[in-house]
Amino acid sequence: MNKLSDSELSPISVSSKRLRDFVSEVLQYSKVPTDDSIQAADVLCTADERGIRSHGVARLRSYSQMLQTSRINPTAKPKVVRQNSTLQVVDGDNGLGLVVAPFANRLAMEQAESRGAGLTSVFNSNHFGIAGYYSTLGTKNNLIGIAMTNTPPFVSQEARPPRLLGTNPISVAFPTKGRPVLIDMATSAISFGAVENSIREGTVFPLGCIVDANGVSSTDPNDLLQGGSLLPLGGVLSTGGHKGFCLSAIIDIFCGPLSGAAWGPFVPPFLNGDIAPSRQVGMGIGHLFGALSVTTFTTLDSYYKQIDDWIHVMRSSEATADGSGAIIPGDPEHAAAERCEKQGISLQASVVADLNDLAREIGLTPL
Amino acid sequence: MNKLSDSELSPISVSSKRLRDFVSEVLQYSKVPTDDSIQAADVLCTADERGIRSHGVARLRSYSQMLQTSRINPTAKPKVVRQNSTLQVVDGDNGLGLVVAPFANRLAMEQAESRGAGLTSVFNSNHFGIAGYYSTLGTKNNLIGIAMTNTPPFVSQEARPPRLLGTNPISVAFPTKGRPVLIDMATSAISFGAVENSIREGTVFPLGCIVDANGVSSTDPNDLLQGGSLLPLGGVLSTGGHKGFCLSAIIDIFCGPLSGAAWGPFVPPFLNGDIAPSRQVGMGIGHLFGALSVTTFTTLDSYYKQIDDWIHVMRSSEATADGSGAIIPGDPEHAAAERCEKQGISLQASVVADLNDLAREIGLTPL
Repeated sequence: MNKLSDSELSPISVSSKRLRDFVSEVLQYSKVPTDDSIQAADVLCTADERGIRSHGVARLRSYSQMLQTSRINPTAKPKVVRQNSTLQVVDGDNGLGLVVAPFANRLAMEQAESRGAGLTSVFNSNHFGIAGYYSTLGTKNNLIGIAMTNTPPFVSQEARPPRLLGTNPISVAFPTKGRPVLIDMATSAISFGAVENSIREGTVFPLGCIVDANGVSSTDPNDLLQGGSLLPLGGVLSTGGHKGFCLSAIIDIFCGPLSGAAWGPFVPPFLNGDIAPSRQVGMGIGHLFGALSVTTFTTLDSYYKQIDDWIHVMRSSEATADGSGAIIPGDPEHAAAERCEKQGISLQASVVADLNDLAREIGLTPL
Repeated sequence: MNKLSDSELSPISVSSKRLRDFVSEVLQYSKVPTDDSIQAADVLCTADERGIRSHGVARLRSYSQMLQTSRINPTAKPKVVRQNSTLQVVDGDNGLGLVVAPFANRLAMEQAESRGAGLTSVFNSNHFGIAGYYSTLGTKNNLIGIAMTNTPPFVSQEARPPRLLGTNPISVAFPTKGRPVLIDMATSAISFGAVENSIREGTVFPLGCIVDANGVSSTDPNDLLQGGSLLPLGGVLSTGGHKGFCLSAIIDIFCGPLSGAAWGPFVPPFLNGDIAPSRQVGMGIGHLFGALSVTTFTTLDSYYKQIDDWIHVMRSSEATADGSGAIIPGDPEHAAAERCEKQGISLQASVVADLNDLAREIGLTPL
């Protein structure tokens, strides 16, 4: 991974439909069934639409390679292997997380529609894209959505290697009369995707996010790829880093020991070519999805009145330096999505070049 | 609140039974029924036993005053006002959180025992002590416990006032064959209790935890009491502070707009004498309790084997500077509790003096 030139970083707009079709075709070339490829394309393109470029089509080549080398099963059939009134357990059959996770999340939402609450625990899956894709799907039907996953280890405990836990993201989305309140975040100070972006763009991080292989604080994202590690949310111990480690541990225990997936330092890598873990303690990556109907808690009238007021109060406060009011969780994603609706999906020129190289390699029409 | 002298800070040991009896007597003097007073004493003394002095008997005077002035209802009868197969809603009748919360948490655990999962949403309550008291109660019966509460506003969004959210703590406890894995944390960089302790002890914080009334970074905990605010977990935006704000928002929305309690800047104060909020948007403080049986996810055999291995792997890694292995969430609390079992509960001399003053004021036998 190298720093890119200005021209490689310049934005190119692609229509949402064209990009979805393209991703779907690339995945179908790797034997992913049509319906699954359309679903996976929707997850990836939604990340780009929300401005989370690190988790979008920039990773398509890696997914494609892992499918080609059978590291990921293109024709996986995720299935329910355990079920009770609260929760179902899904074996992902080592499929694309972008296919397994939508299946699992749908079951949690269906359970919530009929009984007020639903949970799906998943093992034997792979990287599922942005957690916020899943949590927001039910908000139009008055469902609060929860999604989390464990990820390969990049995070150390006390500002020195070894890496013990993943950047383990969590998303929670609350319905509103407008766009959902959307929390979608890694539990490390910065996400691995932010590191990838930063390397491409040649930017650095403030102290408190990365340590190098010797445990020395660093601002250089390249140090992560050379044996360093990410700090948990909160940074070092005195500023609350133990809390970020705790959050990551909560997600790892739900997604690993409780699901049957791998955990901690043994979670398999999600990028093609990365070294496999030294032990297999479970199968693949694990996820947990939850859905809760607002009506389980209170009446729709009461809730929507309150959450509307909550948002209004936050926005009316002079919380930011320019006096423009507090940022509501999800505002950046919603603003990016609005721009996309007008202008198409904005991709870095280097990403488009890479996708077009990939297309030519496998005989598809470039973007 | 002033810095204390060395002699005022020196530790005094009190037996666990004596301290519980004392707290119970003080509360009974304020008309709290005997059983409720015993329950409340157990919550407060457990905080001191776990080394979380900020949330223990040091706050007894404040609770006592709020009961005396009818700010808190001593004879509250919390009751279920809404119930379905997933969740019950409890009206706390403006009682002590130390009484309302155990009642509500018990209902969630009973639901989990019979159906695999349970949730209780609470409004019209008050400060409930340490969240970790509730989450750990069911771990011996293979229950994962979850507890959260909103709290009065001390946290700003972008390193400048106004205060928009509380330090909103969350606790999750996972059963193991030994002591539970216990996460119990405020979602701000530091808790309000840590600020109180720091003022008493005359210590300062690193940058990234507090800003003064002008939004300038500060290391002085007194600046919080003079119009400043706490930073969310993660500190400023570039080190992930927006994530801590998001975590606090999740808890506030569950405990406020979804429960019927107050929320955001309008959560009532938990210390006697603090100014009441400018608007009433709900009733009292809100909590949410969850309980999930391990057997909802997997077999006990499979889970205990995995979580044992998880702990072993973490402890075997050279994660800390002295090479002694990773700290498992809950280790500090468990170590403090072990010390207490041998030596009694260790209180600061100033806290004992304050409790004894209180005892004399109301005609009880001092400690």
